[in-house]
Amino acid sequence: MADPSRYDFPAIQTTFPAPFVAHVEINRPKNYNSFSPDVFSSLARVFDRLSEDENVRCILLSGVGKHFSAGLDVKSASTSGPVSQTTEGEDIARRTWKIRRHMYGYQDGINAVERCEKPVIVCCHGVAYGAAIDLALAADIRYCSKDVRFSIKEVDVGLAADVGTLTRLPKIGISYSWAKEIVYTARDFTAEEAERVGFVSKVFETKDDLIKTGFELANFIATKSPVAVQSSKALFDFSRDRTVQDGLLYTAAWNSPMVQSDDVKKAMMSGVRKTKSTFEKL
Amino acid sequence: MADPSRYDFPAIQTTFPAPFVAHVEINRPKNYNSFSPDVFSSLARVFDRLSEDENVRCILLSGVGKHFSAGLDVKSASTSGPVSQTTEGEDIARRTWKIRRHMYGYQDGINAVERCEKPVIVCCHGVAYGAAIDLALAADIRYCSKDVRFSIKEVDVGLAADVGTLTRLPKIGISYSWAKEIVYTARDFTAEEAERVGFVSKVFETKDDLIKTGFELANFIATKSPVAVQSSKALFDFSRDRTVQDGLLYTAAWNSPMVQSDDVKKAMMSGVRKTKSTFEKL
Amino acid sequence: MADPSRYDFPAIQTTFPAPFVAHVEINRPKNYNSFSPDVFSSLARVFDRLSEDENVRCILLSGVGKHFSAGLDVKSASTSGPVSQTTEGEDIARRTWKIRRHMYGYQDGINAVERCEKPVIVCCHGVAYGAAIDLALAADIRYCSKDVRFSIKEVDVGLAADVGTLTRLPKIGISYSWAKEIVYTARDFTAEEAERVGFVSKVFETKDDLIKTGFELANFIATKSPVAVQSSKALFDFSRDRTVQDGLLYTAAWNSPMVQSDDVKKAMMSGVRKTKSTFEKL
Amino acid sequence: MADPSRYDFPAIQTTFPAPFVAHVEINRPKNYNSFSPDVFSSLARVFDRLSEDENVRCILLSGVGKHFSAGLDVKSASTSGPVSQTTEGEDIARRTWKIRRHMYGYQDGINAVERCEKPVIVCCHGVAYGAAIDLALAADIRYCSKDVRFSIKEVDVGLAADVGTLTRLPKIGISYSWAKEIVYTARDFTAEEAERVGFVSKVFETKDDLIKTGFELANFIATKSPVAVQSSKALFDFSRDRTVQDGLLYTAAWNSPMVQSDDVKKAMMSGVRKTKSTFEKL
Amino acid sequence: MADPSRYDFPAIQTTFPAPFVAHVEINRPKNYNSFSPDVFSSLARVFDRLSEDENVRCILLSGVGKHFSAGLDVKSASTSGPVSQTTEGEDIARRTWKIRRHMYGYQDGINAVERCEKPVIVCCHGVAYGAAIDLALAADIRYCSKDVRFSIKEVDVGLAADVGTLTRLPKIGISYSWAKEIVYTARDFTAEEAERVGFVSKVFETKDDLIKTGFELANFIATKSPVAVQSSKALFDFSRDRTVQDGLLYTAAWNSPMVQSDDVKKAMMSGVRKTKSTFEKL
Amino acid sequence: MADPSRYDFPAIQTTFPAPFVAHVEINRPKNYNSFSPDVFSSLARVFDRLSEDENVRCILLSGVGKHFSAGLDVKSASTSGPVSQTTEGEDIARRTWKIRRHMYGYQDGINAVERCEKPVIVCCHGVAYGAAIDLALAADIRYCSKDVRFSIKEVDVGLAADVGTLTRLPKIGISYSWAKEIVYTARDFTAEEAERVGFVSKVFETKDDLIKTGFELANFIATKSPVAVQSSKALFDFSRDRTVQDGLLYTAAWNSPMVQSDDVKKAMMSGVRKTKSTFEKL
Repeated sequence: MADPSRYDFPAIQTTFPAPFVAHVEINRPKNYNSFSPDVFSSLARVFDRLSEDENVRCILLSGVGKHFSAGLDVKSASTSGPVSQTTEGEDIARRTWKIRRHMYGYQDGINAVERCEKPVIVCCHGVAYGAAIDLALAADIRYCSKDVRFSIKEVDVGLAADVGTLTRLPKIGISYSWAKEIVYTARDFTAEEAERVGFVSKVFETKDDLIKTGFELANFIATKSPVAVQSSKALFDFSRDRTVQDGLLYTAAWNSPMVQSDDVKKAMMSGVRKTKSTFEKL
Repeated sequence: MADPSRYDFPAIQTTFPAPFVAHVEINRPKNYNSFSPDVFSSLARVFDRLSEDENVRCILLSGVGKHFSAGLDVKSASTSGPVSQTTEGEDIARRTWKIRRHMYGYQDGINAVERCEKPVIVCCHGVAYGAAIDLALAADIRYCSKDVRFSIKEVDVGLAADVGTLTRLPKIGISYSWAKEIVYTARDFTAEEAERVGFVSKVFETKDDLIKTGFELANFIATKSPVAVQSSKALFDFSRDRTVQDGLLYTAAWNSPMVQSDDVKKAMMSGVRKTKSTFEKL
Repeated sequence: MADPSRYDFPAIQTTFPAPFVAHVEINRPKNYNSFSPDVFSSLARVFDRLSEDENVRCILLSGVGKHFSAGLDVKSASTSGPVSQTTEGEDIARRTWKIRRHMYGYQDGINAVERCEKPVIVCCHGVAYGAAIDLALAADIRYCSKDVRFSIKEVDVGLAADVGTLTRLPKIGISYSWAKEIVYTARDFTAEEAERVGFVSKVFETKDDLIKTGFELANFIATKSPVAVQSSKALFDFSRDRTVQDGLLYTAAWNSPMVQSDDVKKAMMSGVRKTKSTFEKL
Repeated sequence: MADPSRYDFPAIQTTFPAPFVAHVEINRPKNYNSFSPDVFSSLARVFDRLSEDENVRCILLSGVGKHFSAGLDVKSASTSGPVSQTTEGEDIARRTWKIRRHMYGYQDGINAVERCEKPVIVCCHGVAYGAAIDLALAADIRYCSKDVRFSIKEVDVGLAADVGTLTRLPKIGISYSWAKEIVYTARDFTAEEAERVGFVSKVFETKDDLIKTGFELANFIATKSPVAVQSSKALFDFSRDRTVQDGLLYTAAWNSPMVQSDDVKKAMMSGVRKTKSTFEKL
Repeated sequence: MADPSRYDFPAIQTTFPAPFVAHVEINRPKNYNSFSPDVFSSLARVFDRLSEDENVRCILLSGVGKHFSAGLDVKSASTSGPVSQTTEGEDIARRTWKIRRHMYGYQDGINAVERCEKPVIVCCHGVAYGAAIDLALAADIRYCSKDVRFSIKEVDVGLAADVGTLTRLPKIGISYSWAKEIVYTARDFTAEEAERVGFVSKVFETKDDLIKTGFELANFIATKSPVAVQSSKALFDFSRDRTVQDGLLYTAAWNSPMVQSDDVKKAMMSGVRKTKSTFEKL
Repeated sequence: MADPSRYDFPAIQTTFPAPFVAHVEINRPKNYNSFSPDVFSSLARVFDRLSEDENVRCILLSGVGKHFSAGLDVKSASTSGPVSQTTEGEDIARRTWKIRRHMYGYQDGINAVERCEKPVIVCCHGVAYGAAIDLALAADIRYCSKDVRFSIKEVDVGLAADVGTLTRLPKIGISYSWAKEIVYTARDFTAEEAERVGFVSKVFETKDDLIKTGFELANFIATKSPVAVQSSKALFDFSRDRTVQDGLLYTAAWNSPMVQSDDVKKAMMSGVRKTKSTFEKL
């Protein structure tokens, strides 16, 4: 079992409800789980640790309480951070430079979910606005409950989304026409609409059902060979961004040692014998 | 309000029916709005002007009369332009060179819609064949009326589409298997089929409904911060073609000055006060 | 008509049931059409020949008997090939090197379907597991019968798919969330689900219906100008992997001589006269 | 002979001293040929016309008078253009947006030299500072006279070069270590140093020698097949920026019609007969 | 002045000998400054801090004592780290996975030099073998003393270089033929040879001269506008790896706010008045 | 020792003068070793075999007799092959298609040298024209004798080089300005000039010296670990064409199993003991 004391960071709660499964929750329910600076930096630290934790094979990501997250905590963003500090007469180049560094920091929190070696299942419920969408898009599998209210809110605060939504949305296999309408209007969209276009792959009646089935999926993935599952994630995301030819070259370099794994023999054997394999840690 | 006299080009009619909204119509109804050389060159000029016109924030694109467009005007293509001038004994290299330049010209007319800084909503109705599809694919949002008859007609005239369809179709989030069938057979497809696969994001009963709702969307987008909307378009299209990492780097460089906009403060304030902001021109 | 004697390779049966149409079938029905080394190498040889055979314009790909294919022949894979030869004490670098070369060979068999100049319609029926999916993804158009049972099986044998599935799946316009769930769980999915997400573009009641309609489509495509159809395939696949700008440049270079084809005149004429053209071989 | 009246633009003088050869000169000698807004926009117009002028096959680029160019005209830049108009209280996003558009305009003037279909030989003499280097880097062949004083001056005015130097310098085959030193220090470098590192490929005693030999080279290139020379430029620059594999694919698409040119037969014949060919216009 | 206490890491010594200039030295002289795990991780930490330290504008990198560095500390590599832990019977996939993670860690130490926002001048002296070359290639400017003995040593220990040499060497503007010979043979090359091919841009008689002139350069760069210098580094390295068109787009997005800096006004003014500007921190 | 009978192909002579070293010679001395169709196809077959031949570790490539090669055999090109068969009235699209396929075939002969897993040292002597340059550029290391006369001859026969020169020349680290001059003029350049710009990395007095030293280098490389040398080639060429980041990712995937090779232990041991290792075949 993973050691919970290594995951004690502000604003993010990490638990280990089943063998090889982690549950990461945004933990600011009084603030609609909005993204304070802590949320971004804790996300990076938690997911980078989970990525190398041999006791974790699959991760469920959701919010404590009713809502997944209302997005950027505007109040904390406007009272701290370089965006807020509009010092009179400050040089524009220097201010812009600081903001850019700041954005890299925010992007890094979200990217940590994508670069995490283990699959991440995100469960969206209640409000899922703005940065919550950026976060959801960095996960592998998107589920939601019926009550969810999605919105790519940034345009409504005078911004273009800058921590990943505009970058990942054209690559998740949904209608580009729909995606642009959703972004330009900042309008809400429902669970039903999200499922129809392929934004989420399943919808559940209640948050409870959502989390329950999410864990069933996580547990199921956790029984598979971690060599196989984690290699699949790595090769998927590399290939998405490059030519088929580069994807194939990388796959061959990556996979040629992996197929020598004991997991292959075990898995084949248990396929034949109809037994269940237990795979070593990775 | 934009100055209509700057948009007086042959074969394309441009009007400004509402503040910050332009309506561009292919205007050759007697010829099924087919693409004469004028259509391509006027498209480039009109959209390049709209792109920098501070009085325009969203554009509706449709056809005058019943049909959106029947595609390339075969008659005019075969009586003028280098393709037609099969001078006996002309050097193949030179003829090919002229045709290539010619294609760049055609592509440029279509590309102008994509490189236009403002969102473009295309409303397809009646016949939408060949080059009409190339054009529609360069727009941001695709709507149509129930009566529309789409066809990627090029194969039926012995051609592969060369002004954008084959290039953009694999990137709009629709089934690649369906797309190839549609291209290889040149068969018609209906509004219903187009909506089901995600080629268009909404279907309307009549052309009137289509245009009316199109304008409602355009007007709505025009009320948003132009900094936010236009940045979103720029970052979307850049990211579509590149790695996630390059998309994020470009986003941070682009957005770090943009978030210092007065629009952010205005938009946040009006979010809090439930009022409506008016944004300065861009 | 194509010369069948040039297509006599083990494990793959190639017939020419109609003018310009080839039927390629995996021919190991006693072994569920599983992929022996022969299947991979014969695929490469058959499709490379079809690619340049002027008597072929469209190809149907299916399996002899009830099943399309059960994927890698685990038995033959474990008794021959470098993966099997775990010589005691063999150098890891050298073993890995051999396996990598081996993977290139397997990938080559699948790639031959994609690099084949002619459209390939794959008809999936019965079981379509593992390598069968890699193969189907390299085809242009995917159809299936209602009884099909798809599974991206690799994770269940302790492997990440390495002959194309992970590389091509993010590029066929289906929900990325769904794709990852399917890969990480290795669960079966049905014809209905495959159609809903856009993995296949049509489903048929029985294998007979599937093959029959597949041939109708193949025959129909075979009546079109081969210059137009084959150029479309080439430009489609090039563009899928690159920026829109590179796609357009390549299209102009490729198409500028192609539009000078006699096919264009013929096709236009028959469009006008409502007659049917016969196109010369390519 | 080309028609000089089509090339009458401010700040740039274009003459046609020999058949198929154009001479483009920056023509603001009283201002050290510094780049006013006119220089950028005239460059774009002149080179875009030369690119399609069948009477031109090779272009010499230099400066009227002693100096090639002192770079950006700081005075005109600070009294006109968006950079100068620091309206009190102007929104940063909007100002930045205007400047970005402005930069695209400047880049376009320089890019016109690279996208010009004909080879451009740049002859640097006297002072060649700042934007003069951006311009020289967009040319095909760089020559200079002994008296030249090069400097990538931008850092000394508090700027990073933004119209091409930083983008093209890593791609012209010179020591990256040297290039960075030159840029970070903004120090002068001599003709001798420029030749040693490969920045220029030849140095001449005087401006007269430089121009004279430049014309000899231009005249010589102008006697070659324009199909061959212009194809070479196009394929070179495409390949520089992409993988070898993409370069080869593009080359085959481009060149397969080109090798059918009459020029090939003529050139081969004259090779055999030791005569001189005259090639048709392109 | 930077705060030295923030730079107290094992195996790397960081001092601040002049305003805005840092001196980073590999500090294991008894071990020929060979790369222990500490060296890699301290490099990452030191350079990531320097990158954001507003008191630093240019960095000199060298070795304490006679030698720059003998490369990987083979002893420490073989007694610690996953490469060493050849546990009998360990699964190949799992071992490989650990090594890959380990390599990312090593690469990260080297990459920190390239991603550091400030220019890095590397001064090579004495022995500069293996990992020392990887490190030198990540710096901006390469200088050396006459006594240096370079060698890309990896082949001689049965390895291909994996922390950057093979990746960066084809991109620094030196003869590819020479580079490959040097790598395949692992032979020594001298300062003279390194300068001739452009591997280093200057050679000095002694280490003292080297360091002295290195500091003069560093001090000189430190007097320049940090906005200008650091933007140049960022735009240079981005452009090196991408098409010219992408380089130009990124440059415009990055630079459009930067040119609004007070540094531009200051620098222009001091150019006119022949005075020296002092630039604010960044 | 390699089995010579497997290398018996027309127009190319392959011998094995020393352990692990192959000597490939173009063998049409009566025709100046010009490239007949046989040369291209034999090159592909020979180098693809050498690539997988465990008895070969380094390859020397030269010409039988005085000359390396005069390039394309114009006579054979004009009497056979699709370029020659200008059937009256043949469809341009179909002819172009055939020529394109033909070019892929020629490119494939040259590419085989680059994709060969083993280092190739090319020794140029006598005449090295046209296709001889394409071939030399695909090799790893370029040496020549003093008497060599290089020319990128294609422009002089009315062609742009299409089998690799224009694609690889911008990537070998030589002055781009020089490269373009050489291509546009088709002028001869000498051994001395070739060495100065970095086109070749060494020049020898006579062909005998050239071949002798070439073999010394080949023999030396053949004593090194083949895992190390061949990995270096693979990683070098992959990285040349891609971003540094992709190069590093690929390197880590490739190299993580390779560093577990016995060769590492052997090489380290012999480094310590000052003995010479013998490496197993690969």
